[in-house]
Amino acid sequence: MMTQIEAAKKGIITPEIKKVAEKEGIDVTGLLESVASGEAVILKNNIHDIAPVGVGKDLLTKVNANIGTSPDRMDIELELAKLKISEKYGSDTVMDLSLGAILNTVRARILAESKIPLGTVPIYQAGFEISKKKKHIAEMTIDDYLAVIESQAKEGVDFMTVHAGITRKAWEYVNTGGRILDVVSRGGSMLCVWMEANNAENPLYTYYDRILEIAYKYDVTLSLGDGMRPGATADASDRAQIEELITLGELGRRAREANVQVMIEGPGHVPLDQVETNIRLQKSLCDNAPFYILGPLVTDIAPGYDHIAGAIGGAIAGSVGADFLCYLTPAEHLCLPDLSDVREGVIASKIAAHAADMVKYGKRVRSRDDAMSRARKKLDWDEMYRLAIDPDTARERRESSGVADKDYCSMCGEYCAVKSLNEIRNNK
Amino acid sequence: MMTQIEAAKKGIITPEIKKVAEKEGIDVTGLLESVASGEAVILKNNIHDIAPVGVGKDLLTKVNANIGTSPDRMDIELELAKLKISEKYGSDTVMDLSLGAILNTVRARILAESKIPLGTVPIYQAGFEISKKKKHIAEMTIDDYLAVIESQAKEGVDFMTVHAGITRKAWEYVNTGGRILDVVSRGGSMLCVWMEANNAENPLYTYYDRILEIAYKYDVTLSLGDGMRPGATADASDRAQIEELITLGELGRRAREANVQVMIEGPGHVPLDQVETNIRLQKSLCDNAPFYILGPLVTDIAPGYDHIAGAIGGAIAGSVGADFLCYLTPAEHLCLPDLSDVREGVIASKIAAHAADMVKYGKRVRSRDDAMSRARKKLDWDEMYRLAIDPDTARERRESSGVADKDYCSMCGEYCAVKSLNEIRNNK
Repeated sequence: MMTQIEAAKKGIITPEIKKVAEKEGIDVTGLLESVASGEAVILKNNIHDIAPVGVGKDLLTKVNANIGTSPDRMDIELELAKLKISEKYGSDTVMDLSLGAILNTVRARILAESKIPLGTVPIYQAGFEISKKKKHIAEMTIDDYLAVIESQAKEGVDFMTVHAGITRKAWEYVNTGGRILDVVSRGGSMLCVWMEANNAENPLYTYYDRILEIAYKYDVTLSLGDGMRPGATADASDRAQIEELITLGELGRRAREANVQVMIEGPGHVPLDQVETNIRLQKSLCDNAPFYILGPLVTDIAPGYDHIAGAIGGAIAGSVGADFLCYLTPAEHLCLPDLSDVREGVIASKIAAHAADMVKYGKRVRSRDDAMSRARKKLDWDEMYRLAIDPDTARERRESSGVADKDYCSMCGEYCAVKSLNEIRNNK
Repeated sequence: MMTQIEAAKKGIITPEIKKVAEKEGIDVTGLLESVASGEAVILKNNIHDIAPVGVGKDLLTKVNANIGTSPDRMDIELELAKLKISEKYGSDTVMDLSLGAILNTVRARILAESKIPLGTVPIYQAGFEISKKKKHIAEMTIDDYLAVIESQAKEGVDFMTVHAGITRKAWEYVNTGGRILDVVSRGGSMLCVWMEANNAENPLYTYYDRILEIAYKYDVTLSLGDGMRPGATADASDRAQIEELITLGELGRRAREANVQVMIEGPGHVPLDQVETNIRLQKSLCDNAPFYILGPLVTDIAPGYDHIAGAIGGAIAGSVGADFLCYLTPAEHLCLPDLSDVREGVIASKIAAHAADMVKYGKRVRSRDDAMSRARKKLDWDEMYRLAIDPDTARERRESSGVADKDYCSMCGEYCAVKSLNEIRNNK
């Protein structure tokens, strides 16, 4: 059994590559080349029975929804409902970021029920297993970690965040760099604690080849985590972040050489005028590997509305080359998201991704906008709802406003500009 | 009594210019120069007792909330509640866009209760007065129109949208240009109907000098409306739009020569990669007059979430020079906004304006973000709420999640990265 990148390097069009090319309406030969060069990846564990999802060059910008329990809110049914709502509103993948005593059960249930690729951050489970043994995270061995990723890969997890780029050098830059917010990545902070306690290099970096072996076996796509991502706009694009990005570029190359598919993760909190630079720098330092970003949030002051601050950054990032947007919800920085947060987060990210794709792909995606504009011209409300990013909400809003029997809406009523113009046209 | 621009040209620092400079923490001499050159305006009718608001060069990006009745929803108390909620969430101005039989009453009440500058679109009242006389909008005379703007100016309206840039030439471009959505501006469509029926030039253009006379008398800032703004991303940056913009630039110059303060209105629906071009072109064609934009919406497919599509465009636009963002609410394209829409719309626009100002003004506004990041580092929740764009929502979200007695939040619980890092620091 070959991985997608291995097959692509040999010029073999796998069923997965074919399916992705068909779904996206692009040339299969081009996709084959992108997968071979590592500019695109196909998310699908080779033992997981799901439709493959492509991320990267020439492919629509994808959206991920983070779900999962927290130690303070362990409710499996709620997390499964989040999975369903993510799928309903068009999330391309979900990541199960569960923490707490039931995290293995949650992951098993999500894997069983998900129709879309599932990602995880295995260091969370590794930390949990260590704490079950009444040990501290600093006592984790590479074998503990590898056992977790092998067991998750065997279960069918499609992509995994691996914080192998957090090195002592990057950590030193945090310690000396004057950041306001140090390290805000959960997984990243665990490895910093480990390095600090052991006075040794990050084991995920040291034993990276062993991680690659497992990823290769199951065609798990590695998502090289950005543990040094800025958690404050003031900390963006600093030495710690860029040092890690350089390392991620090297690790990405090693993954491709080992026929392992790989994506690079990116920030974070980034002022608007640094977003484009961050994307172009990643593409340059990481050989155009797919870039999977969290936000970026263009301001720090919007808790409660970080899906909006993130959509601003995500749209700009996507338009200049980011490939994969991890959603942010209104709950970010405040609490575990609820169902409404998940819906709002997915939709905000889908808007950002689509706005970006209009720039990247022109007519291929703008046709939906044009169809919407034509429906508006015809005052064809059913068609407008059908084309809307959230048909139910669009319909409910207008129909509850008391003018459902009219051809206009309740904002302008009979003064509708579209109606007036249509009358001019009809009188001619 | 002199207008602000007239005084500024003479080097006179009016109390209003002084107040605005103080509020914004900028040098009063610089502001005086900007007002004299027309690169900034001071919104305040000379008989209206409100705090003046500055818009333009070196000034924080401002946000406007559109409120007002529609023929299908005439509820004065609801509109007054919208005014209050707009003020609460930091809208810098409101525009009363009331339509329907009670529009004069609504405006009077809003003027009486508003603490922030009020804008109107006088053609709406003009159309209403005409229809009261059982006449058609095509029968409106320039005197009918001037009577309305004079009466509104006398009431204290601070700025008025005047669609004087809609010319027969621009209209011809609409007729021959192959737009999907013709004209979507309410006021703009009324003037197109007028021109078409009378086979004559737009009277607001022809008799523009008479409009300037009234505006001068009360120091009403003219907001030159973009009746040809694209209502579909497919129609953006076309000949009709740019022809009107050229005219608006000329009309702006004439206003400044007549010592009338003037802003230019802008689009609309604009693909993300055309936003910057639109702003730079306006600044170039309109002598850096303040640019007041509606969105721009970077996609057409987000009804129900147009505050997000608009925040994306608004943040980018603001970062490259747009001065004034008219909000869009989740109700856009669907119905008249309710109170929740108004709140969501104002907050989304404030986020966009702030993200833009971080780029335009650096430390002057980023200090709030940095204070938020420092509060996060200290896990100082009260300080985080205080600095948040919506303190009540931030507090409610976290406190209702069951961890209000902890120092972390319910997303990561005890696995909080900030806590872990603080522990490393404290152990050193």
